[in-house]
Amino acid sequence: MATNSDYEGRRRSLLEALMAIACERGLDEVSVREVASEAGVSPAKVQYYFRTKDEMLVAAFSHVEAILTGRAGHGSTARGVAHYLREHLAAWLPTDAEGTALARVWIAFLARAVVVDELAAIEVRHRNGLHHDVAALIDHGVETGEFAPDVDSRLEATLLLALVDGLVVRMLSDPGGFDAQQALHALDAHLDVRPRRRRHQQQQEHERKPVKAGV
Amino acid sequence: MATNSDYEGRRRSLLEALMAIACERGLDEVSVREVASEAGVSPAKVQYYFRTKDEMLVAAFSHVEAILTGRAGHGSTARGVAHYLREHLAAWLPTDAEGTALARVWIAFLARAVVVDELAAIEVRHRNGLHHDVAALIDHGVETGEFAPDVDSRLEATLLLALVDGLVVRMLSDPGGFDAQQALHALDAHLDVRPRRRRHQQQQEHERKPVKAGV
Repeated sequence: MATNSDYEGRRRSLLEALMAIACERGLDEVSVREVASEAGVSPAKVQYYFRTKDEMLVAAFSHVEAILTGRAGHGSTARGVAHYLREHLAAWLPTDAEGTALARVWIAFLARAVVVDELAAIEVRHRNGLHHDVAALIDHGVETGEFAPDVDSRLEATLLLALVDGLVVRMLSDPGGFDAQQALHALDAHLDVRPRRRRHQQQQEHERKPVKAGV
Repeated sequence: MATNSDYEGRRRSLLEALMAIACERGLDEVSVREVASEAGVSPAKVQYYFRTKDEMLVAAFSHVEAILTGRAGHGSTARGVAHYLREHLAAWLPTDAEGTALARVWIAFLARAVVVDELAAIEVRHRNGLHHDVAALIDHGVETGEFAPDVDSRLEATLLLALVDGLVVRMLSDPGGFDAQQALHALDAHLDVRPRRRRHQQQQEHERKPVKAGV
């Protein structure tokens, strides 16, 4: 008899087959038939887990965003809020093979979300969660005295997340010309001045850091 | 007898039909048959201008990026380089119906460019052109004394373009939750500190500007 974890495992393997197709050939190549072929099962088997292609896409997008959130969620503020914030944001950049595959699938879904309301709702919920977490982290940094007391955490979170999204887009569309090192350098340049540190922290930081080359 | 401008006009009307489909339903709904239907001509007529769907997509992406470049290319540095830079970057944000339609089509092509080399080449050429133009503008601002002499124009251009791309992505995926005003406010907050002004200019600016509400 199939257990609950068998069911979840098989369902997940179908979502991973879908992601592999989206990563290599794009989301418009995804169909119940193609996912079945990629996973080595019958189309009827796929339809046992997902009645329609749309249902499968919604499940896959939620799955992608859950993995992305999991990747960024590790670490602690033991070495300071600013340090954790940097690690948290850097984790969104596709700096390894898994991250690149996820980012390729994410951008395919993002483009689809612009024309499909149900996918847009998933993206908005995910995005608002991220924004809330980053703003809360910055508020925490204001409380611990790492950031200046008048820092606008929601504005800073908007700027940081937009910057990271833009860097991801550039890395994906020009993998040979704009690499992880350049993206991290740009992120660090932003974090050097935003969110603004308390004055004495900023001075210590500048004394410690070597001057970096331009991107 | 068909003149050269007839030919160009008819070709452009097919590209506009393709863009209308991509904007409303996404790029995966684009086919020679659908473009013919949208433009009110026969599929054979479409194939007279574009032999294959791929050829049509390449032409359409180039067309979209030419329009986007044209939209941003107006203005002058008469009111200062920093002022022009702000206008130039704000023009990329989808703040009106035409801009929104173009941005929706752009993101569809961007997702496709990740898996199709020929589209990626168009995006990279366009992106490098933008980066070069923005960096040159910042260099000009350094020369005129508006920006600090040690500003790294290539890094600043990378940050600005990534930020704008990220803001466009957010506006497109959450049109009800993140609007043009919030995007412009975020862009202005970035430009308040980057590229860094010469000290005396920065002071004048801060005296003049009212305090804004958070995003």
